[in-house]
Amino acid sequence: MTVSDELWPDVQPATARRLMLAGVESFAERGYHATTTRDIAGAAGMSPAALYVHFPSKAALLFEISRSGHEQTLALVEDVLTRAEDPVERMRLLVEDFVAWHARRHTVARVVQYELNALPEREYQVVGKLRRRIEQVVREVITQGLGSDAFTVADPQVAAVAVLSLGIDVARWYSDRARLTPTALGKEYGELVLRMLGAR
Amino acid sequence: MTVSDELWPDVQPATARRLMLAGVESFAERGYHATTTRDIAGAAGMSPAALYVHFPSKAALLFEISRSGHEQTLALVEDVLTRAEDPVERMRLLVEDFVAWHARRHTVARVVQYELNALPEREYQVVGKLRRRIEQVVREVITQGLGSDAFTVADPQVAAVAVLSLGIDVARWYSDRARLTPTALGKEYGELVLRMLGAR
Repeated sequence: MTVSDELWPDVQPATARRLMLAGVESFAERGYHATTTRDIAGAAGMSPAALYVHFPSKAALLFEISRSGHEQTLALVEDVLTRAEDPVERMRLLVEDFVAWHARRHTVARVVQYELNALPEREYQVVGKLRRRIEQVVREVITQGLGSDAFTVADPQVAAVAVLSLGIDVARWYSDRARLTPTALGKEYGELVLRMLGAR
Repeated sequence: MTVSDELWPDVQPATARRLMLAGVESFAERGYHATTTRDIAGAAGMSPAALYVHFPSKAALLFEISRSGHEQTLALVEDVLTRAEDPVERMRLLVEDFVAWHARRHTVARVVQYELNALPEREYQVVGKLRRRIEQVVREVITQGLGSDAFTVADPQVAAVAVLSLGIDVARWYSDRARLTPTALGKEYGELVLRMLGAR
């Protein structure tokens, strides 16, 4: 299984996945605006014309990368709600998975998190909706924990932003040379967040 | 006093400051690699030739923005060591000031934090040294707090990364429309970090 198969199992055909990976690598290295469709096609070993068979534009390719990254993180965040009932356990799992994803997928995550403003208006709205849903789940778990006296925080909205910030910023600094594996880092951050929220 | 006077009081003459501000705005909007010296000069209302009087290259301009941003944040972090002795008080002040800086200067901070890889090798080394010094101060305060039983953390290195992450990521999401002022956000984050470190 190649990296691009693992990243986007639902994208068909394999050529489209290869172009998305080439896009991720080019955008992460030089930024969206400095990357041309020719650069991306070249990095995938294709002609610019072959790229347009799969993506009508550079923006469409970015949107696929962004949408899919947001859908994946939303899915793991929502999954936590079905895996646990207790707010402390939910928050621990949520942070573990969210942090591990941003570490394991740090190059994809960098594009997903830092190239939002490059999305066209309509595509930005779609991704914005997914982001708001992710934030909402985090806020819901915090509210649940406040209700059961499991958490104590002065400003739940600020706390939710801080929880997500810790995970998102992993994409900026994490590298394959990092001391901790994605899973180990997730576990450490899970503990830190529970303390931050006043659990126990 | 203009924004650029406030940001870089030590840079002379005012024209150089104006170019730095134009650089910050262009880099923050389109990224370093997609910005030309012509774009920057134009945004500052000058000719490209006038830019070269002050900065030999686009990279030199980025370096000035980056170096100055890192020096400013290092100065406020180091200043905390002289303002307080107690590790809890030191950490509170450090987070308050570091977070407030990233909120107040969010556009500058975005360039400072997210365009590191665009710096040429030698300039990257200079900035890297400033970054390591900032990280060292944070680790020192955590170590001091562990020594006096004011803090309890399983992995002090991970905790230091998390403290800085919370501040740095503010540059990504903060805007002038944010609900809390930079100072109020710093205060909230100071509380969250102290809890994260197990204070009290």
